[in-house]
Amino acid sequence: MARVLTPRSEDFPRWYQDLINKARLADNGPVRGTMVIRPAGYAIWEHMQADMDARIKEAGAENAYFPLFIPESYLRREAEHVEGFSPELAVVTHAGGKQLAEPLVVRPTSETVIGEFMAKWVDSYRDLPLLLNQWANIVRWELRPRTFLRTTEFLWQEGHTAHVSEENAREYARLIHKTVYEEFMVEMLAIPVVPGRKTKGERFAGATNTMTVEAMMGDTKALQMGTSHELGQNFAKAFDITYTSQAGAVEHAWTTSWGTSTRMMGGLIMVHGDDNGLRLPPNIAPIQAQVMVVKAGEGVTEAAVKLRDELKSAGVRVKLDDRADIPFGRRAVDAELQGIPIRIEVGPRDLANGNAVVARRIDGTKSPIALGEVVNDVVAALKADQQRLYDDALSFREANTVDVKTLDEAIDAAQTGWARVPWASVGTEGEKKANGKAITVRCLTRVDGTMPDSDDEPELQAILARAY
Amino acid sequence: MARVLTPRSEDFPRWYQDLINKARLADNGPVRGTMVIRPAGYAIWEHMQADMDARIKEAGAENAYFPLFIPESYLRREAEHVEGFSPELAVVTHAGGKQLAEPLVVRPTSETVIGEFMAKWVDSYRDLPLLLNQWANIVRWELRPRTFLRTTEFLWQEGHTAHVSEENAREYARLIHKTVYEEFMVEMLAIPVVPGRKTKGERFAGATNTMTVEAMMGDTKALQMGTSHELGQNFAKAFDITYTSQAGAVEHAWTTSWGTSTRMMGGLIMVHGDDNGLRLPPNIAPIQAQVMVVKAGEGVTEAAVKLRDELKSAGVRVKLDDRADIPFGRRAVDAELQGIPIRIEVGPRDLANGNAVVARRIDGTKSPIALGEVVNDVVAALKADQQRLYDDALSFREANTVDVKTLDEAIDAAQTGWARVPWASVGTEGEKKANGKAITVRCLTRVDGTMPDSDDEPELQAILARAY
Repeated sequence: MARVLTPRSEDFPRWYQDLINKARLADNGPVRGTMVIRPAGYAIWEHMQADMDARIKEAGAENAYFPLFIPESYLRREAEHVEGFSPELAVVTHAGGKQLAEPLVVRPTSETVIGEFMAKWVDSYRDLPLLLNQWANIVRWELRPRTFLRTTEFLWQEGHTAHVSEENAREYARLIHKTVYEEFMVEMLAIPVVPGRKTKGERFAGATNTMTVEAMMGDTKALQMGTSHELGQNFAKAFDITYTSQAGAVEHAWTTSWGTSTRMMGGLIMVHGDDNGLRLPPNIAPIQAQVMVVKAGEGVTEAAVKLRDELKSAGVRVKLDDRADIPFGRRAVDAELQGIPIRIEVGPRDLANGNAVVARRIDGTKSPIALGEVVNDVVAALKADQQRLYDDALSFREANTVDVKTLDEAIDAAQTGWARVPWASVGTEGEKKANGKAITVRCLTRVDGTMPDSDDEPELQAILARAY
Repeated sequence: MARVLTPRSEDFPRWYQDLINKARLADNGPVRGTMVIRPAGYAIWEHMQADMDARIKEAGAENAYFPLFIPESYLRREAEHVEGFSPELAVVTHAGGKQLAEPLVVRPTSETVIGEFMAKWVDSYRDLPLLLNQWANIVRWELRPRTFLRTTEFLWQEGHTAHVSEENAREYARLIHKTVYEEFMVEMLAIPVVPGRKTKGERFAGATNTMTVEAMMGDTKALQMGTSHELGQNFAKAFDITYTSQAGAVEHAWTTSWGTSTRMMGGLIMVHGDDNGLRLPPNIAPIQAQVMVVKAGEGVTEAAVKLRDELKSAGVRVKLDDRADIPFGRRAVDAELQGIPIRIEVGPRDLANGNAVVARRIDGTKSPIALGEVVNDVVAALKADQQRLYDDALSFREANTVDVKTLDEAIDAAQTGWARVPWASVGTEGEKKANGKAITVRCLTRVDGTMPDSDDEPELQAILARAY
């Protein structure tokens, strides 16, 4: 097969951009840093959304929609918050043909506006927990944009909840972090993520705790795939979110927020892509199998249509490609680029033997299969391939993670992979030193993999890495 | 039942706003003209989206996402277009802490940016038709905002397609107009809409033809529920969307666009709402039936849970309300306000007789039903109530539409309803006269109800009305 993309090993960032262009996932928008998500890319995002949205609803949160424009004054209420965001803001100064009395910020998060409405809607303990989620576009001005990973405008979901106690808020943030983020990424995206706690230096502005799910990309760098924050009573105090308790006292609520974005698209590409293009986990693939007419011939299209219909009946997301006037090789390269897990190639020669060729994108195998067995074969292959992608990504991460004892060893090891080191050997000073070498503490974890309750627990491990 | 809303007959606009507030559908946003769509309202919008999105995909269009920010220069390319929009634009002048070299417009529609990318993606006739749709937020500065109907920011879908010929473009626009818009509104929203052609004066800027679906609201005014445009080659010429034909010639494409928005929420309320609140068509209701524990008692909660589970198994979208500590009356009023089609009230007294009370929001009936028959009764009621809402809305429209012969009669009749009058009696001059009296030609239709091909066909009928 002709070389379509810059090889990953030659230039990883270029390979990434090549893949996005050639697989028609996205284009750069007319304004620097913005992107156009093309149908092939957007369909993946829609499948991510649908599955994650069901998990969010299962966790009891309800969707709502808050305005794009936020009065500048709102952002000033939470001092740490505005400091974290101000260089990234886009500001509307003119509208309706006039200069506005107060400039409007295009939301860099809806934290503040949602805080304002929570204050309005919450009255008594009966109104809590208030569990809200929003799917929306977000703007943060980006000086070094990279498609899906850092864009001036991106799509995300942001959850915002209010609770009667710190414990309830913490439990809910953990529920979301585990059942919506971690399990979605593992089960749907086939990405082994490490759930952990951010250090104080890496926390979201205004949060008392930030939890993250970190994944290793194909170049061994880390990508933060999603975060969940406990905000203590900080936001509730800034936005006056109070409730009357069962005992009749007026109390401030405890709030959380949590988000994931189109950045996950970048992670999906960088974890599973190879030199021939994307490899989509079957569970998230908009098209799981493509039945292809190799070339015209007696009964070929009929056989292909029949297979398409049978696969559809078996619950496979299947598409028919009967464009016999376009060379088969070109169409096959395209299907590889787009990462369609399985191609079922139907041509006159194989058909004469009662077979179709099942070509699997993920393990690269290609075998003739009797027509009557194609459906079972494909269903089994989709399941196996989902697992295989996960296993491969996990093996890769393990092969590129080393356990070390000292900060210097960790900084050294993090040049080419992840370093796992006792947090006691790093500490806040060590973290600054690592940061000076473009290495960050991705997260803190307990030895048994459970989530720490504080940075000060004994025997915590830190993961140090270069990151996107 | 205590009066919760301003009666419709007393003050329709106030009733509308009352209903939105009390049913917790939406709040005003912090920036004038913007809105917060609350969970109860957003859930309805999600159901609209899901059904309409499936219809759009069935018609072959694919979803994509284009940037929020559009360089100001893009809007100048299509002179008529910018003229139509300029007083409504919101403009970003500062971002990333600096003044921008070129101001950015917050999309008032994505027509121009999509035109730009169509030009990039279309090369040969093989790339056509190109059928794109986008779900997005839109900003048009609104001086006289009204929730859902006219808001500075709203949510919509916008379809944009390119074709090899005028005929193909026209056919596709009509397919969307019929199978996505008209059928969705009739089948899901239970709103009898009149599909018709806009006059030249009412056409979308830059369109060669605008088709509309018009509905009569509860105060007899008209609401434009959606529009589909043929854009001829106007946009293709402005944005240089060309393709190489099968014969090898370079040709301009023919484009269409079509959109519906959260405005449909306003239509739903104003068509079906009554003095007790919203009445949701079962097909679009996020909650079709609510099983309510009237008050605690032996076996009551168990019986309610059992009914909830049985209804769920029967495919009914059902919710359990077991908050026995909140007075039943208050919860019942709330369910009426929110428009939940059916309440199944489970209390100790009826339970002792082996019954639950089925209260139907739409026809207002309330009957004891044997527990074993509740599921069948509810399923049948949901079907009947969907039809009933449609029939009632149609009867109301017919009762408030009069056929007249002259312009003056039409202007007179349109003060209190819709006037149907021969278009030949109105014409462009008559239209201006009507406009001077706040009456517009909503659309032109053929006598047999089919869509006219031009304004000049003989025997066209015009519908004149006051409108939102």
